[in-house]
Amino acid sequence: MHKLGGATPTEEMNGAGNLMDFLDEPFPDVGTYEDFHTIDWLREKSRDTDRHRKITSKSKESIWELIKSLLDAWSGWVVMLLIGLLSGTLAGVIDLAVDWMTDLKEGVCLSAFWYSHEQCCWTSNETTFDDRDKCPQWQKWAELMTGHAEGAGAYVLNYFLYILWALLFSFLAVSLVRVFAPYACGSGIPEIKTILSGFIIRGYLGKWTLLIKTVTLVLAVSSGLSLGKEGPLVHVACCCGNLFCSLFSKYSKNEGKRREVLSAAAAAGVSVAFGAPIGGVLFSLEEVSYYFPLKTLWRSFFAALVAAFTLRSINPFGNSRLVLFYVEYHTPWYMAELVPFILLGVFGGLWGTLFIRANIAWCRRRKTTQLGKYPVLEVIAVTGITAVLAYPNPYTRRSTSELISELFNDCGALESSQLCDYINNPNMSRPVDDIPDRPAGPGVYNALWQLALALVFKIVITIFTFGMKIPSGLFIPSMAVGAIAGRIVGIAVEQMAYHHHDWIIFKNWCRPGADCVTPGLYAMVGAAACLGGVTRMTVSLVVIMFELTGGLEYIVPLMAAAVTSKWVADAFGKEGIYESHIQLNGYPYLDVRDEFTHRTLATDVMRPRRSEPPLAVLTQDTTTVEDVETLIKDTDYNGFPVVVSRESERLIGFVQRRDLTLAIKNARQKQDGVVSSSVVYFTEDAPQLPASNPQPLKLRRILNLSPFTVTDHTPMETVVDIFRKLGLRQCLVTRSGRLLGIITKKDVLRHMAQMMNQDPESIMFN
Amino acid sequence: MHKLGGATPTEEMNGAGNLMDFLDEPFPDVGTYEDFHTIDWLREKSRDTDRHRKITSKSKESIWELIKSLLDAWSGWVVMLLIGLLSGTLAGVIDLAVDWMTDLKEGVCLSAFWYSHEQCCWTSNETTFDDRDKCPQWQKWAELMTGHAEGAGAYVLNYFLYILWALLFSFLAVSLVRVFAPYACGSGIPEIKTILSGFIIRGYLGKWTLLIKTVTLVLAVSSGLSLGKEGPLVHVACCCGNLFCSLFSKYSKNEGKRREVLSAAAAAGVSVAFGAPIGGVLFSLEEVSYYFPLKTLWRSFFAALVAAFTLRSINPFGNSRLVLFYVEYHTPWYMAELVPFILLGVFGGLWGTLFIRANIAWCRRRKTTQLGKYPVLEVIAVTGITAVLAYPNPYTRRSTSELISELFNDCGALESSQLCDYINNPNMSRPVDDIPDRPAGPGVYNALWQLALALVFKIVITIFTFGMKIPSGLFIPSMAVGAIAGRIVGIAVEQMAYHHHDWIIFKNWCRPGADCVTPGLYAMVGAAACLGGVTRMTVSLVVIMFELTGGLEYIVPLMAAAVTSKWVADAFGKEGIYESHIQLNGYPYLDVRDEFTHRTLATDVMRPRRSEPPLAVLTQDTTTVEDVETLIKDTDYNGFPVVVSRESERLIGFVQRRDLTLAIKNARQKQDGVVSSSVVYFTEDAPQLPASNPQPLKLRRILNLSPFTVTDHTPMETVVDIFRKLGLRQCLVTRSGRLLGIITKKDVLRHMAQMMNQDPESIMFN
Repeated sequence: MHKLGGATPTEEMNGAGNLMDFLDEPFPDVGTYEDFHTIDWLREKSRDTDRHRKITSKSKESIWELIKSLLDAWSGWVVMLLIGLLSGTLAGVIDLAVDWMTDLKEGVCLSAFWYSHEQCCWTSNETTFDDRDKCPQWQKWAELMTGHAEGAGAYVLNYFLYILWALLFSFLAVSLVRVFAPYACGSGIPEIKTILSGFIIRGYLGKWTLLIKTVTLVLAVSSGLSLGKEGPLVHVACCCGNLFCSLFSKYSKNEGKRREVLSAAAAAGVSVAFGAPIGGVLFSLEEVSYYFPLKTLWRSFFAALVAAFTLRSINPFGNSRLVLFYVEYHTPWYMAELVPFILLGVFGGLWGTLFIRANIAWCRRRKTTQLGKYPVLEVIAVTGITAVLAYPNPYTRRSTSELISELFNDCGALESSQLCDYINNPNMSRPVDDIPDRPAGPGVYNALWQLALALVFKIVITIFTFGMKIPSGLFIPSMAVGAIAGRIVGIAVEQMAYHHHDWIIFKNWCRPGADCVTPGLYAMVGAAACLGGVTRMTVSLVVIMFELTGGLEYIVPLMAAAVTSKWVADAFGKEGIYESHIQLNGYPYLDVRDEFTHRTLATDVMRPRRSEPPLAVLTQDTTTVEDVETLIKDTDYNGFPVVVSRESERLIGFVQRRDLTLAIKNARQKQDGVVSSSVVYFTEDAPQLPASNPQPLKLRRILNLSPFTVTDHTPMETVVDIFRKLGLRQCLVTRSGRLLGIITKKDVLRHMAQMMNQDPESIMFN
Repeated sequence: MHKLGGATPTEEMNGAGNLMDFLDEPFPDVGTYEDFHTIDWLREKSRDTDRHRKITSKSKESIWELIKSLLDAWSGWVVMLLIGLLSGTLAGVIDLAVDWMTDLKEGVCLSAFWYSHEQCCWTSNETTFDDRDKCPQWQKWAELMTGHAEGAGAYVLNYFLYILWALLFSFLAVSLVRVFAPYACGSGIPEIKTILSGFIIRGYLGKWTLLIKTVTLVLAVSSGLSLGKEGPLVHVACCCGNLFCSLFSKYSKNEGKRREVLSAAAAAGVSVAFGAPIGGVLFSLEEVSYYFPLKTLWRSFFAALVAAFTLRSINPFGNSRLVLFYVEYHTPWYMAELVPFILLGVFGGLWGTLFIRANIAWCRRRKTTQLGKYPVLEVIAVTGITAVLAYPNPYTRRSTSELISELFNDCGALESSQLCDYINNPNMSRPVDDIPDRPAGPGVYNALWQLALALVFKIVITIFTFGMKIPSGLFIPSMAVGAIAGRIVGIAVEQMAYHHHDWIIFKNWCRPGADCVTPGLYAMVGAAACLGGVTRMTVSLVVIMFELTGGLEYIVPLMAAAVTSKWVADAFGKEGIYESHIQLNGYPYLDVRDEFTHRTLATDVMRPRRSEPPLAVLTQDTTTVEDVETLIKDTDYNGFPVVVSRESERLIGFVQRRDLTLAIKNARQKQDGVVSSSVVYFTEDAPQLPASNPQPLKLRRILNLSPFTVTDHTPMETVVDIFRKLGLRQCLVTRSGRLLGIITKKDVLRHMAQMMNQDPESIMFN
């Protein structure tokens, strides 16, 4: 290793990397960030390397230090294990509680009030196989209160109590959110994306948010609103991740390392939400994460697996599966079916566009008008309308995930659902699996009407529900819309194939008496298409669906629908629902996927512009403490470049505003002789001044000697690339070695918005 | 967009980005790279953006241009489709050919000589179910030639012909490689990793390599050598990718875009090698790719799916599965079994370490001694030894993938293999699936001995085989080693559980008469462990194995074994076999996974060092053509910084040696008045000189006005990060705006090697 001449190693190495060595003690807050500020990824990484280096060199000193270093090396895996265990447990508890409370709206189990409908009749020995969901222990409210199970009176009483319970749950949910944890509302994914990209939102992943979000999520889902628990589960898992980060200083003191843990936690969240560990990892990679090194890939996978297995050992659905809607199909699909699948993809894309536009318009309205001032009333009103409209229709009365589960299922021989009311050929024996296509019975036609009504209802109500001040995910409502549409299409194709199997398109693959069309598969494809249209996921979506069915065969239909839906939706607007909400909220999020293709240069973007006052800089040896204080007071920049002299404009480093303030405050308090007229030195050695002059203040320690620079001729696409890949906060612009200006992340975002003709003022934070 | 005052847009925007606009015509070779050189990712990206911008702006002009721009936008998907189709087809053809030629070593099908043993007896109607692999149409060589199927004479004759065929196949393979395509040897993955990281190896992915590799792969695998087709299939798929790149100028003219296609092709290769599309994508992401944007993720997934479905429709194994060793297990695993699984992981890690060390030592020996001069002889010798030793043992005589397939399989009721020779309880009925544990019969004990011998043989011979001058993958041999070890352990545990089910560890989960232990699962876990130890894959390995079994249940055993094996192997050396071979060959590969944690600064690494002559720079307006030519002749640098003047050392840009040479050559030929004493101007305007002075040469056009700079105090870890993430070739070092030196990728690699106490001189290329 080569060292420079006379300088001591500590002075020599004074890059951003080891800033902390000297400053940890004197200024305790140095190195942390303020709320709603952007982190500097390079600095965080440097700090972690320093920490690591220190531990490694210490570990050679004693056995105890060696053990400490081993513990440190293993802490990442420990955190993953804990996240997996806790988020799996929470997901299981939420599932059980939602199950119970959803059924509570309709009735109660007399033998044990904490049993859900299914558990109640499952444990009863009076249940017969044909009437699996009827047993004397389970009583509807009307039956319990009046003794009459049937009749108009009982119906009205049940209806009324259903609405009442729904209103109670949603009122509780919104009140808890309002009073205890405002950050617990919504799906949380837009904010998590922003946080993972390097933004600080204090309290968003706090303990309090975790607790309230878990409780209110149960209440919100049970209230029967058109929302799901999947998105919020990701938020809950990230809160768990943040909680366990605080146990290890490696993660709690480094915002960069913390984000690696959070990425993995997001994977665990999706893993338990869908029972899809691989899908979860890919979701985290594709959708939410910003910086995803290979190490995080392994750890995410581990956390996702632990979470999935914890959930499975809780077994909330009693089917030893991770999700309610696990399915297995027995028949293959045929090439000709790709046409309806692609049509479902188109439908999904259109639904995605409609939903995003309408929802964003409504949310903007909520933000800008009086509406936003009455969140409790809004939730109550939407819950009331949902409950009133949902109860009469059997497909909307039950929970949305049960609906999806029924729609996905293929009609087996033992299915008692209305959707499986086909007319059986009396001569035909009943094999267990492979049932040929049959003509639809009256129940199916009845179900189709109800499904069509449910579709319209879901489409409209979901637009108004997502974004209210309660935890609300949109995976499940989106999937429900798609599943309903898909099932309707599926039944239509099935009946067409049955009645017209001499048509040329059916002739090749659908002989009479064969089982050619699986309407459940159409429901699944529709669900994937709609979810894809709203979120613009592709690979992770297909993998999640693949893990639900476990069959490679159905990847092609799913892929076709997902890609079509993405293309259709992208044609109307590039942004998915999460990006739209990020933009609506004005978070400084630099999307990895947006390609910047304009022909601008760094000089067009940098500040100061031509008309503006010159750049606020410090000189290395002529600025006084008072000058610095004035500069800090007069400007609100986050940092200042330091130059050799104003004439030469030669850059030597960059100093953070926060560090500067703390250092001067500290010096004024503790260091004798530092007064307003003291000269601030950023040079390696301060000159020996006569005693009459005030004591100089040496600040080289807080100077970042390796600020990032580009030339004024650098194309903006390169600058954007550098900001993205290195996670910079700011970058200095030079020409022939002279400092010309500065580009901050905010400037980059504003310029990108300008180039895309968006409202540049919507980026609010720095 | 802001423009600078008087400059015209073309002069104004003269960054690296639009360099090509002006130079495409005058100097045709500008923008390409020489062989064994590193590409500049930022420049490639800029060039692609320019191209895209040009097409987009043109597309508004006419319908034809619009169609052209749409075609351009779709070309990526078209290339993926073509890659999927071709690599799937090639994989299918290779599988069929290998099947036939492997069997040809033992005998021939009389009814149709192009049938493999299985196909021959499958089409025969004289085959009985109990003797599935015996039929009169299939005759061993001895039977065909002498009429005697049994006896010592027949055995010797068959043995002799087996060796003869093996020698013939391997001789053909090595000769073809030697004569036609030297790059077709080895697995190709180390080179593909290097190419994907931005290195140019011309011809490595050429048409000729594709053809020869496909043919010789079949020959090499059929010769019975201990090698697999999986790694070479990735190379074959990448050749396909490169082939289709040349159809579209978007990919053929841009080295960066080409690498995106190659990443996807690698995914398609693994997809067909293992029948695991998701695993293939993750393999490409985790193991081989360098720059893997989200767009590539989607496209890789598409290519991998197309390839898998093409292969499935060829159906080379006749089981409508993508791989020979697809398995389904029927019994769960128990917690206590984790102990043997982890032990298998330890075995895998040790095997990985042993294999890498021994193989690298042997390959180094081959490179440095006389041995390397006789590649044909070496292949012949190894093939001879392999054939002689393999024939007597039934587990090594057949192809390695058949062996793995048998080891993975659970013993069903209908299994006729020696490994399934258990003693049946005569009172027990024979259910199809769930067979309880039984005592092992003599066949099993016999098989165990043979397997133990096969294990030793495979371990030793694989070390000498991998790296010879024929296509050779090591996935299959590694998996075979693990599968043999796993099966042996599995049978041991099974028999222990059967005979001692009163032991405390078995008591809880293994009642007598139950099916508790699946030896096939142990084989699979062992295979994963050994493969993991050699390659250090984790997530992709588990996902590939998961796709082979299709059961989420077995992920935990696989994960436990894979992670243990990685940890054990990492304890002995961080590098997997591919990284070791990259290092052995001295490719300039900057591994994304190596963390650089040393406390050095840019100033310690940059050239020139203190003792060296000053940096070779050009000045913007005082250098003559002769000076430049002398500089080019005297140095071998790839480029030169341009400064305002030697005194001020203010950097204004960077000029590539190649561009400079071409520009001067061009000017001397075509531009009147340019002589040796002409002054070269890199400024915006050359001054008006008196007519007596020689004509100046303006070269601002080839000047990169946005060279990358860091300060001398920048920590090397940041510099390494920048090189990795932005894919730079070189970076200039400044202090207070003055140019101090330069750091090239080679310097970075040399420094990293130095810091890790490796041999820095092994990095040979620039």
